[in-house]
Amino acid sequence: MQALIFDGTLKFVHDYPEPELRPGEAIIRPHVSGVCNTDIEITRGYMGFQGVLGHEFVGTVVACHDQTWVGRRVVGEINAACLSCPTCLRGDPTHCPNRTTLGIDRRDGVMAERFSLPISCLHPVPDSVSDAAAVFTEPLAAALEIVDQSHIQPTERVAVVGDGKLGSMIVQTLRLTGCDLTLVGRHPERWALYTEQGITCRQSQDIPPTEKFDVVVDCTGNPKGLATARQLVRPRGRLILKSTFQADSEISLTALVIDEIQLIGSRCGPFAPALRLLERNLIATAPLISAEYPLSNALEAFSSAHGQMKVLLRHS
Amino acid sequence: MQALIFDGTLKFVHDYPEPELRPGEAIIRPHVSGVCNTDIEITRGYMGFQGVLGHEFVGTVVACHDQTWVGRRVVGEINAACLSCPTCLRGDPTHCPNRTTLGIDRRDGVMAERFSLPISCLHPVPDSVSDAAAVFTEPLAAALEIVDQSHIQPTERVAVVGDGKLGSMIVQTLRLTGCDLTLVGRHPERWALYTEQGITCRQSQDIPPTEKFDVVVDCTGNPKGLATARQLVRPRGRLILKSTFQADSEISLTALVIDEIQLIGSRCGPFAPALRLLERNLIATAPLISAEYPLSNALEAFSSAHGQMKVLLRHS
Repeated sequence: MQALIFDGTLKFVHDYPEPELRPGEAIIRPHVSGVCNTDIEITRGYMGFQGVLGHEFVGTVVACHDQTWVGRRVVGEINAACLSCPTCLRGDPTHCPNRTTLGIDRRDGVMAERFSLPISCLHPVPDSVSDAAAVFTEPLAAALEIVDQSHIQPTERVAVVGDGKLGSMIVQTLRLTGCDLTLVGRHPERWALYTEQGITCRQSQDIPPTEKFDVVVDCTGNPKGLATARQLVRPRGRLILKSTFQADSEISLTALVIDEIQLIGSRCGPFAPALRLLERNLIATAPLISAEYPLSNALEAFSSAHGQMKVLLRHS
Repeated sequence: MQALIFDGTLKFVHDYPEPELRPGEAIIRPHVSGVCNTDIEITRGYMGFQGVLGHEFVGTVVACHDQTWVGRRVVGEINAACLSCPTCLRGDPTHCPNRTTLGIDRRDGVMAERFSLPISCLHPVPDSVSDAAAVFTEPLAAALEIVDQSHIQPTERVAVVGDGKLGSMIVQTLRLTGCDLTLVGRHPERWALYTEQGITCRQSQDIPPTEKFDVVVDCTGNPKGLATARQLVRPRGRLILKSTFQADSEISLTALVIDEIQLIGSRCGPFAPALRLLERNLIATAPLISAEYPLSNALEAFSSAHGQMKVLLRHS
């Protein structure tokens, strides 16, 4: 079958082996997949991954031992956990030490004609949510992880640093809390959507050094953005880290102690509330799509994706 | 007057100027003061401080415009805040950007015959609490800052890394929560007290790499101890940083995101509950005193303090 793979270099191949149907899993034919910055990081060596790329998808189950799943339109969580270790039994399957991760860690991803995922990861998509919206479920869930981990009060001042793909999901979930919300970014040409949504948009150089925020989210994916985010947190405030990047950053731990800052690492999030927000039309997705390519043009899609908003692959 | 000062080198002098009585402040004659690791860090350049050292004390108010304070036995919070800026009015005076800090930042400390502190920092000491116990109020309050910032559940597994002075206060406050508590240290000769108190004591090399804790406190004051502490935290656990040290540490922020760790900087804490715990005899202090010197032997006390438990100065 056709697949976009990374084996040290990025390749589009026509003879990739079909996924096997394993017990408890489903074979899925993706309709649409999305290019994430993590995919781009992987092509730079992040996680040492080799195989089919991609983890954002909406598709149809085409094979499963449990026939009730066959034919259903689904999205899927990306961490395939063992569901039997102490971490899973504590309710933290996304941290299972035995997990594989779709298109990221020892499990072929979605940028192919078919792929496999445990049925425990699948969520049926409501009919009213289009494929082009449903493909945002995974990054939207990652954004919701912030409010799942931390109580954002409607009276707080919150800054999101980074006006890229992940930032677009994060500001749209945080605005729903009623908090005083500022998006700090470097791309004013992207801000019309957010301004219409009542979100203040600013460049970091326009924020005086004395102006501080109760909560700051870094989703820039680079050390300079992290430094900006740190600078904006008030003493006793929270700095939420959403970026994973290959190059490691430095941060002054002594200054964190003196200012009693809380640093909160935040990764994958809950799918069910993400689907509810999409069904309730509370999240704009269409304006975030920069381009759509057929799967057969995946290499071109990939090379164009850096610095863009969401680039989608249409599989069929 | 006599004073132990640091002006690039540590000196004991006999002609230090008397403190001035300023509005809203009190002149205090210390009975006993304690040597803290922060004092030792200051003599290595931490905070760039110059002046009289020391911030742990119990003493008597000898002069104050408000006569009701004169003659009272007091301990005192170390941050002298302005009480009028937005940070103070938000209830965070220990983070006041205009603050001076006793013996640490632009305010002469307690290792002298007399010193000055705002009356808003003072707390009368209950008669049943001896001077030798009351001098532990400040480090005990710093330990209580942990449970003031973070809900430690009685069902959680907690590790405290560092069996020094601050660790001795931290384990004694955390044991009161009922949590499953382990002290990780390098000085088994100090553990008898903790073992009697029902605290498990272990060396880090005896903890297998798969054994993890819900909450880990680093109070080692060195990068190697911090690395041990980080290694012991489970995914989605909390790592509480109590150490300030001059050399900065590195920690992998990407790993914090992947494991969704919360890093919590923690500094000075509340005095009123610290005094209540001392009054209720819930904290052992006498076994923690390594040595006591007269103020006039402060230089000797200081040079002996490194690697010891609490070294006290008796002022009169």
